[in-house]
Amino acid sequence: MKVLILGGDGFCGWPTSLHLSDAGHEVTIVDNLSRRKIDIELECESLTPIKSVGERLVAWKEVSGKDINFHNFDVSKNYQRLVNLLTDWEPDAVVHFAEQRSAPYSMKSSVQKRYTVDNNLNATNNLLSAIADSGQDIHVVHLGTMGVYGYGTAGMAIPEGYLKIKTESDDGNLIESEILYPVNPGSIYHMTKTQDQLLFQFFNKNDGTRVTDLHQGIVWGTQTKQTKLDIRLINRFDYDGDYGTVLNRFLMQSAVDYPLTVHGSGGQTRAFIHIQDTVKCVQLALENPPQKDDRVQIMNQMTETHRVRDLAKKIADISGVKIDYISNPRNEADENDLFVKNDHFLALGLEPTTLDAGLFDEVSDIAKKYVDRCDRSKIPCVSLWR
Amino acid sequence: MKVLILGGDGFCGWPTSLHLSDAGHEVTIVDNLSRRKIDIELECESLTPIKSVGERLVAWKEVSGKDINFHNFDVSKNYQRLVNLLTDWEPDAVVHFAEQRSAPYSMKSSVQKRYTVDNNLNATNNLLSAIADSGQDIHVVHLGTMGVYGYGTAGMAIPEGYLKIKTESDDGNLIESEILYPVNPGSIYHMTKTQDQLLFQFFNKNDGTRVTDLHQGIVWGTQTKQTKLDIRLINRFDYDGDYGTVLNRFLMQSAVDYPLTVHGSGGQTRAFIHIQDTVKCVQLALENPPQKDDRVQIMNQMTETHRVRDLAKKIADISGVKIDYISNPRNEADENDLFVKNDHFLALGLEPTTLDAGLFDEVSDIAKKYVDRCDRSKIPCVSLWR
Repeated sequence: MKVLILGGDGFCGWPTSLHLSDAGHEVTIVDNLSRRKIDIELECESLTPIKSVGERLVAWKEVSGKDINFHNFDVSKNYQRLVNLLTDWEPDAVVHFAEQRSAPYSMKSSVQKRYTVDNNLNATNNLLSAIADSGQDIHVVHLGTMGVYGYGTAGMAIPEGYLKIKTESDDGNLIESEILYPVNPGSIYHMTKTQDQLLFQFFNKNDGTRVTDLHQGIVWGTQTKQTKLDIRLINRFDYDGDYGTVLNRFLMQSAVDYPLTVHGSGGQTRAFIHIQDTVKCVQLALENPPQKDDRVQIMNQMTETHRVRDLAKKIADISGVKIDYISNPRNEADENDLFVKNDHFLALGLEPTTLDAGLFDEVSDIAKKYVDRCDRSKIPCVSLWR
Repeated sequence: MKVLILGGDGFCGWPTSLHLSDAGHEVTIVDNLSRRKIDIELECESLTPIKSVGERLVAWKEVSGKDINFHNFDVSKNYQRLVNLLTDWEPDAVVHFAEQRSAPYSMKSSVQKRYTVDNNLNATNNLLSAIADSGQDIHVVHLGTMGVYGYGTAGMAIPEGYLKIKTESDDGNLIESEILYPVNPGSIYHMTKTQDQLLFQFFNKNDGTRVTDLHQGIVWGTQTKQTKLDIRLINRFDYDGDYGTVLNRFLMQSAVDYPLTVHGSGGQTRAFIHIQDTVKCVQLALENPPQKDDRVQIMNQMTETHRVRDLAKKIADISGVKIDYISNPRNEADENDLFVKNDHFLALGLEPTTLDAGLFDEVSDIAKKYVDRCDRSKIPCVSLWR
């Protein structure tokens, strides 16, 4: 099928583009390179020496014999180019990664708060409006976040997007219904994903747009089968306090012998997924679209949950590096339980890549290989929630 | 108290500004005159000959002896001016009307969809970010809409913003909780108000911002005690298919002997409020703010519910004009029930202005007086929902 990938140069978008191309789909990337520009703003870089999009695509052609087209524009701003692309190329599906995706970055100051809201909501609204304008039946696959659910509900596993509730009618009967899971976002970034849900709900109801929303856990790992094929295809690896994800940061910190930074008691339980499973899940979502007139299909894209301090201990035990418990810059509970359903993807055949010392080694190897590119001053988290 | 009114030149904003000034509050208006510019875009005008902001404020000074300051800028775009105004003038409260407020206009085409999302969400986010940046404890009073609730739930009166629910835990117990009422917006405009709710929820939780969200019904009537004091203070009266509200349109149509346009069966039940009660409710909300650490205070700002066809019959019976049942351009159920709680405002002392032939006369008199300004070609609703 023809798949348009918005944000196809990013940490999830790039390996997804290669995976789908490798799987035989025709892939076109749209990206305004905003993530690379934020590197410049933050005076930080991917630990891995990622190549320009142009060089990446030449390498992919050499390695695989396949073409991926690339358009450099901002989908939150350049509406007409998006409409033209849908009309001219007629994709079967669009994968939407074109959003600012760091919670700490979204909380740095009003500049980043306002950018995140403006960029993420206009990007999603432009995509849905453009599909309606095009008159085509295009399946939207969107990267959401487990963070829309907040931090779980005592006594109940988090369902996949919808919650069955009972409400009392005026004559005292209990009425059953099913609603979008009540949201409790922990940052401006997470909040925009809860607002995206309302855009999907509306366009699905009003225009019949077919949408799959993937509520993803925290991604760890760096490489996928395809990004390993050539050094020029290497994926980005963020270790800084804003864009680095917790497990990758621990693995990187252990590789450079920097104390593992645990915020608060580390009692926060989070959902995780390996980058190899991310790209597989997107493929499964594309190949199993909702039918016309189905409601928005929501799937939890995660494979396991862990407490942050347990992960830190696991890595400290392997590596011998010590743990630093520091004050939590986030505005959140110190301890929480989290149970999550992921029945959809298991039923579609996902075989989860679980946390495994062998895989830890792979990430650590990358960290060790590029240790000279590490700027240790960028490791601490400095974005405060207030 | 010092009250900043964003959108203080509009249909609700202008009479609210005068009412609050008359009640002894210090009032400053911010408005980018977008509503007047949309008149130009739609090639339509207020039936009443409204004066420029400058002339309005001179007239108010002559009539009342009171000053109202005015700043012309766009709060969705000019963030720094908003921060400076909060920091320099130090208002106690901000009333936020600065949103595109027509459902049909928001559905005209992707141009208006995108404008409504971009304007409304950036305006609200800018206001909340600016208050956080200012470091001041400023109460936000926001005009929401009954439309966030969708069209009601069988068997249950719509509560004020929050819904008590029961969910089944994994061990089979029913767990009680209270959530934001699940939303079901009927247009892009209404959807932006459901997204506003998530902005309020987040800034209230993260920054302690005190917010009152007023879920208003359909406003009817034109004049308030203050706007009647001088012809130069007259409020706008919209009768066109985009901005005209249903009851005002019927009254106007009967005055010019145009058949009353009922969409579908007219079985839609809607909540209503007179403009005189709107301004009173905003005053009550300002003078009864939530306390520090209270959740977002939500109040239903409406006084009665009616089926559209019943209103049409009532006016047809008085005026002798006939009713035209035409196809409904909206994507909605033909018939719905609606029961709404408005206990908060009743407890605060609101004495509802109910539908009354005497008040109908007042609106009809205005319609008759300015009949020569009516462009009958602007009466039909032409915005289709798909």
